[in-house]
Amino acid sequence: MKKLINDPNDVVTESLRGMALAHPELLDVDLEQHNIYRATPKQGKVALLSGGGSGHEPLHGGFVGAGMLDAACCGEVFTSPVPDQIMEATSKVDSGAGVLHIVKNYTGDVMNFEMAAELAADMSGTEVATVVVNDDVAVQDSLYTAGRRGVGGTLFVEKIAGAKAESGADLETVKNTAQKVIDNTRSFGMALTSCTVPAAGRPTFDLGDNEIELGIGIHGEPGRERSEMKSAHELALELVEPILEDLDFTGSPVVALLGGMGATPLHELYLMYGEVQQILEEKGVRVARSLVGNYVTSLDMAGCALSLLRADEEMLQLWDAPVHTPALNWEE
Amino acid sequence: MKKLINDPNDVVTESLRGMALAHPELLDVDLEQHNIYRATPKQGKVALLSGGGSGHEPLHGGFVGAGMLDAACCGEVFTSPVPDQIMEATSKVDSGAGVLHIVKNYTGDVMNFEMAAELAADMSGTEVATVVVNDDVAVQDSLYTAGRRGVGGTLFVEKIAGAKAESGADLETVKNTAQKVIDNTRSFGMALTSCTVPAAGRPTFDLGDNEIELGIGIHGEPGRERSEMKSAHELALELVEPILEDLDFTGSPVVALLGGMGATPLHELYLMYGEVQQILEEKGVRVARSLVGNYVTSLDMAGCALSLLRADEEMLQLWDAPVHTPALNWEE
Repeated sequence: MKKLINDPNDVVTESLRGMALAHPELLDVDLEQHNIYRATPKQGKVALLSGGGSGHEPLHGGFVGAGMLDAACCGEVFTSPVPDQIMEATSKVDSGAGVLHIVKNYTGDVMNFEMAAELAADMSGTEVATVVVNDDVAVQDSLYTAGRRGVGGTLFVEKIAGAKAESGADLETVKNTAQKVIDNTRSFGMALTSCTVPAAGRPTFDLGDNEIELGIGIHGEPGRERSEMKSAHELALELVEPILEDLDFTGSPVVALLGGMGATPLHELYLMYGEVQQILEEKGVRVARSLVGNYVTSLDMAGCALSLLRADEEMLQLWDAPVHTPALNWEE
Repeated sequence: MKKLINDPNDVVTESLRGMALAHPELLDVDLEQHNIYRATPKQGKVALLSGGGSGHEPLHGGFVGAGMLDAACCGEVFTSPVPDQIMEATSKVDSGAGVLHIVKNYTGDVMNFEMAAELAADMSGTEVATVVVNDDVAVQDSLYTAGRRGVGGTLFVEKIAGAKAESGADLETVKNTAQKVIDNTRSFGMALTSCTVPAAGRPTFDLGDNEIELGIGIHGEPGRERSEMKSAHELALELVEPILEDLDFTGSPVVALLGGMGATPLHELYLMYGEVQQILEEKGVRVARSLVGNYVTSLDMAGCALSLLRADEEMLQLWDAPVHTPALNWEE
């Protein structure tokens, strides 16, 4: 294992320290609790809180800031944050309008966020609503999941619900917006290589020199099948088809995210995106907005994933709304 | 070799196609000539043009847009663009105030940009000024270079000279600004793994399981020495020390870029950045601005590089000025 780390036990704390130093104007980082806060919170609005295991950077901490998350709770690598940690962040970001928890559908995360929500209600009277992201069409149940896994589409939920909260909507409305995004988002990923968890020190799984995993999870959980390596065009079909089989994406504007798994460079991601968009167009799907890059990753895994959102005009407007975070930053 | 590509001969064209589809509002891409243009050019200002071999994305095409480059000429992977291609882009972006060529110091690039400048002067009377970026302190001469190589610091030159041009400065002034950035920029990189050029199909060089290359070039050219793998803290010292030995960075605000080589995820880059900034502070260097991510890459190489700019107040203001490109995007 060759990684830019010191002691494998310290990777989360030390990575958060670097993130804090790199973004002092955007982030306040609690290095004890492993919680990341928006440096300039906006009072009176619904607060958005997400989190999960580390190793998926920039998710979630890179999405903390104006127009997106108010806090991110970072667990150890591929491990849920703990209830006390989430409770503390929940209480801290509540400025009276309540808090939306955005949780990826993994058993540990769902359980810990639920406990934290109850604790926060008991301790400080914070009103918490929760949505669970389950966009991965690859498998029904998985290693750490009952039901579908939450993967790249989480970015859509955080961006669009974040813009809705920023606009002053109340907790129920923000929750409904988030749920609508989840209901209309589907994802599918693939791995060319395994990731290596620092504390394990060796690849999570083995892939042959000409072998790939289709439907990979973002923790290296098994997907649908092993396959031989294929061309970018054929791989794009492998990404697009299971998504379109699961939901009809024609007739609405679509937001597309072609995300790298951490070790795939932009050179390849752009090439892949060209194939994906061409196939979508041939199938009658109109891409209205797109994003290409490493956003929801799996440590040093090579590979990519496609997430599609069947949007409407309001979702597009919320997507376009200003955002100022380390990983997404734009004016309208 | 497992890469998200089709025919290795088509990677540049196909990657550019995807880039064009992903950024229709920012870029106009000429898929015949492999030139990338700013979609909404600003008339009357000095135009900035850069380019070089492909495989370093987002450099240079990802830096085309308001406040940075007007055009990028993309060669084949790790191969200079050709004179006719550069000449065409030079003539096209000139709106009367002349064109600045920003060239990384590789023999082929320097020669081809020089020929293109002469051709553009002869054919269309375009006034061209040129700066050559040579920020890599690792080696004096290299595989493709007489003198020092141009690497990550190119980003500083393109951003700061781009802002100066956007402000309406004339060609000589913009050139002087660019040269001042070059004179005050130093870089040093390291590789944990080789890159693999698609057409070659195998790694450019071999590194053992516990071996790294210090002072690596962005095409996999040899650096100063092979070393055994070290901790992030020790590696940060390996990056910082040769830079500070080459130029005094105390007493001025410094802009720091900790860049990935393409396959190193943010999780590790942030951790590494924390080490780097701490060491800089201990050595009396004050980081005023920082950037962490994969910006000047070497295909799928794992590793990182540090670039430091000894800035002054004007350079900081130009760094902070608005920029709207695929890879850098901010308001003041």
